Amino acid sequence: MSEPTAAGRQYHHGDLRRALLAAAATAIEESGPAALSLRDLARRAGVSHAAPAHHFGDKAGLLTAFAAEGFEMLAETLAQVREESGGSLLETGVGYIGFAVRHRAHFEVMFRTELLHRDDSALAAARQRAGAALRAGVAGLPAAPTGDEAGNAALAAWSIVHGFATLWLGRALPADQVGDDPEAAARKVIRRLFAAPD
Amino acid sequence: MSEPTAAGRQYHHGDLRRALLAAAATAIEESGPAALSLRDLARRAGVSHAAPAHHFGDKAGLLTAFAAEGFEMLAETLAQVREESGGSLLETGVGYIGFAVRHRAHFEVMFRTELLHRDDSALAAARQRAGAALRAGVAGLPAAPTGDEAGNAALAAWSIVHGFATLWLGRALPADQVGDDPEAAARKVIRRLFAAPD
Repeated sequence: MSEPTAAGRQYHHGDLRRALLAAAATAIEESGPAALSLRDLARRAGVSHAAPAHHFGDKAGLLTAFAAEGFEMLAETLAQVREESGGSLLETGVGYIGFAVRHRAHFEVMFRTELLHRDDSALAAARQRAGAALRAGVAGLPAAPTGDEAGNAALAAWSIVHGFATLWLGRALPADQVGDDPEAAARKVIRRLFAAPD
Repeated sequence: MSEPTAAGRQYHHGDLRRALLAAAATAIEESGPAALSLRDLARRAGVSHAAPAHHFGDKAGLLTAFAAEGFEMLAETLAQVREESGGSLLETGVGYIGFAVRHRAHFEVMFRTELLHRDDSALAAARQRAGAALRAGVAGLPAAPTGDEAGNAALAAWSIVHGFATLWLGRALPADQVGDDPEAAARKVIRRLFAAPD
């Protein structure tokens, strides 16, 4: 199946969807998610005005698909780090920050649930996979906490890496202290949590 | 000295500035800083189109003044917490999160330096005051780190509270775990850092 576009190009179904999501990444990097419109997206991707609505319903639908794609990529990144590092919480955190730096538009949308269809099943499943990968890092600690404290420890780990990534992306961290390699800088900072020795 | 406005109201100089910054807070809460325009701001405040440019130069000038106002308020909040809690790092962090929740528009702009005139002296001074208040919390720890590690510990403390606040504001945290009181939830999470006993 192929679809005609405003620019006269023909897309296969999945390719048009991917082209629209890629155009969304560029637009969000430039101006943030609030300024995004489906009409602008169609123009950027060189497709008909109706194409984005056909694929995603509305703007929240588009951002939901975009966020789900982000959680899929994050889960994949964290799984790979886990395999390579033997389950180190420190490296899991560094992997989270590396993801944020490489995919800043996704990172900006994924955690702003007021922009999304929260009950979307693909989003929920992808978020669940990414969350499980992060919690697995905490559970692998030498003196892993249990019960409520396991939940608090997971939120602490999530908060510290999310905060570092957000401050890094905003260029808010002191340049003379953190240098220009986000992963190296993050490693020194995350190590302070749980006095992680590795 | 007073200034005429589009709506015919008269503002004293400082009052018009304050009215414009208050209108900016409302606009940013609604649509984020990227969508903000000086023209829209003038309309919201009921003043002439020229008034925002007269006061702030351009949009980055307005956001810089807005961010400086935010750092002033944050420094004041942290100083008050410090006085009330005897310098507890935990309570300093909880105070930071409380500030973010009460002033979400300021919080969203303050740490996005690409939106700001970074070399603005009022901004630099206010940011310096807020940073000193946060570092004072770290220096007050029973086993306070020194040298480079003091810097890493301060960044870790900043990251964890910034990340928690950002995730809270995005409603990204699991509701069944964190409940509806951000400061109470934060206290349980921040306590994990440095195994802070208080």
